Amino acid sequence: MKHVISTQSLFVFIKSALLATGFTKKNAEITADLMVQADISGQDGHGIFRLPQYIKRLQEGGMNPKPKFKILSQRTATALIDGDNGIGHLVMRHAADIAIKKARRSGVSWVGARMSNHAGPAALYTKYVLDNGLIGIYVAVGSANHMPPWGGTDLLLSTNPISIAIPSGLNPPIILDMATTVAAYGKVKTLIQSGGKMPEGWMIDKQGNPLTDPTKSKDGFLLPIGGPKGYGLSLIFGILAGTLNNAAFGRDVIDFNSDHKTITNTGQFIIALDIEAFMDLELFKSQIDNVWKEMKSSEKLPGISEIRLPGENLAKTIKKRTSLGIEIPAPLFSKLKQIADELSIPELT
Amino acid sequence: MKHVISTQSLFVFIKSALLATGFTKKNAEITADLMVQADISGQDGHGIFRLPQYIKRLQEGGMNPKPKFKILSQRTATALIDGDNGIGHLVMRHAADIAIKKARRSGVSWVGARMSNHAGPAALYTKYVLDNGLIGIYVAVGSANHMPPWGGTDLLLSTNPISIAIPSGLNPPIILDMATTVAAYGKVKTLIQSGGKMPEGWMIDKQGNPLTDPTKSKDGFLLPIGGPKGYGLSLIFGILAGTLNNAAFGRDVIDFNSDHKTITNTGQFIIALDIEAFMDLELFKSQIDNVWKEMKSSEKLPGISEIRLPGENLAKTIKKRTSLGIEIPAPLFSKLKQIADELSIPELT
Repeated sequence: MKHVISTQSLFVFIKSALLATGFTKKNAEITADLMVQADISGQDGHGIFRLPQYIKRLQEGGMNPKPKFKILSQRTATALIDGDNGIGHLVMRHAADIAIKKARRSGVSWVGARMSNHAGPAALYTKYVLDNGLIGIYVAVGSANHMPPWGGTDLLLSTNPISIAIPSGLNPPIILDMATTVAAYGKVKTLIQSGGKMPEGWMIDKQGNPLTDPTKSKDGFLLPIGGPKGYGLSLIFGILAGTLNNAAFGRDVIDFNSDHKTITNTGQFIIALDIEAFMDLELFKSQIDNVWKEMKSSEKLPGISEIRLPGENLAKTIKKRTSLGIEIPAPLFSKLKQIADELSIPELT
Repeated sequence: MKHVISTQSLFVFIKSALLATGFTKKNAEITADLMVQADISGQDGHGIFRLPQYIKRLQEGGMNPKPKFKILSQRTATALIDGDNGIGHLVMRHAADIAIKKARRSGVSWVGARMSNHAGPAALYTKYVLDNGLIGIYVAVGSANHMPPWGGTDLLLSTNPISIAIPSGLNPPIILDMATTVAAYGKVKTLIQSGGKMPEGWMIDKQGNPLTDPTKSKDGFLLPIGGPKGYGLSLIFGILAGTLNNAAFGRDVIDFNSDHKTITNTGQFIIALDIEAFMDLELFKSQIDNVWKEMKSSEKLPGISEIRLPGENLAKTIKKRTSLGIEIPAPLFSKLKQIADELSIPELT
């Protein structure tokens, strides 16, 4: 049976669940909105799918429902925020607000966060910066280690994703949102739920053999893009988003999929860049339209019908899902029913 | 016959050649020093190897031997520099100096350049920022297009590399320097000189078949790391280092390997980040030493003897080549002999 839910119903359900676990009304609304945006964006591993985990963590004391953010240090163009163990969505929305203000004055800004948590898809925050007229760059330490250093087998690194968002004129914005691994772990998790197999190249086991059964993902690890290059990116993103913010990195990263109690001390950072510090904004946007035109008009490889730009599918998915609603897989739907029971809130319909 | 040249002789030769083509003494020394550093670092495709090309471009009027840099716009934490068509080494050293000063005040800075040229390996500039006690990030539009958009065959993108340098305490700094393609084009060029074959996965031809003969590289193109992900990185790095700086990107990029006259209008940018805006520098360095220890102590895949960190080989190569000198392949050596004749400067010995 298919459950297709309107974005409005999804928002109301998430908001109610968060209110029931101690969020303020405003914070429940910001978080619910960002989580719905994740689903609308096609990031199925990062929206409502994560709610059961978030609720469990809030209930078991591993996440603070009423965080009070502090600025631990700042300069004209930088800040380090203590997220007080709040959900990452709130911490990074707050960080983005600070980054936007600072970048408008200084041209660029870099805001790091410690004592944060899983914040959903990276593009949520760069898109927010973009909607405020600036270029956004976001990097996070992933919320569980699924990758060893290149040549190793100890899980010391995560998918440590990066998103970069750049405005266009007539075309959709260019938005990259990628894990430094060939596949994000969320994709492995959704395959477990849907019962699919992984293609070769996503994971290998501890002997170095390809691993394609997603239910056996614990026996192996994700592979980085470009081999040692992706390992280098993941390592350095982890240092910049984790170590530099005095947040968890390496062996200190808690697997938030299995541990709901221990504070994760997740680290993220966001950069905002004011285009007008370099060039007239409208001129820039029209030049990005030219980039669209150039890339789209390239001759194609045999069998390829269309060249795509990062963010193009995203724009289509947002349009489609906003009108048609979000499809919830049956196992997730029954989990959400259970949550409604537990929290005494209306069921998702 | 093997030609092994001391770094001092290499420096003197490059300096003399640049002086003879119109550089000031100071600029010849800065450039020669950076080019020798490229060779010492093992970046064989980016040091003395590029001298014949640079000289040709200077002689044919495609590059300005006496550039006067201008700041086109700036804010507290940003600047856009006009490199006046000078060699990239000088432009980016200048950009890095500005970035360092701004970051010390503001916490972070972002300095872009237009009207620049090929600047050698990316790590030269992040290492310079690092030597000044800050974290450095550098991105460039490559000086020739060797890659189509994902699924296409028109050469609209370059290897658009990134370097990030992070200081350590007792260990070498962590320095990543990578093309967004599986192989840098410099590696293809050095294979042509040494007569080797490319491994599968570096390039494909216009029908999508693997291309392994480096002398046929014109019939195909480089592949991005992680497929569409590396394409996305290359595209966005090109926009940030090129378009945003009003520098060349896409079809406007001149192939500086074959055209020595047309102004390239190369774009690059550099970010400097002051660690002390986030954390005590010495504490940070000791935590990076912990990262080293953690990664190195990982269990290994069968057949792997050692885990390496980005910058580890670089540190070893610098040590070895500084004492043993640089090996110059015979074809390059005779080209340099010819340059000495033409410019009436002492031969390289």
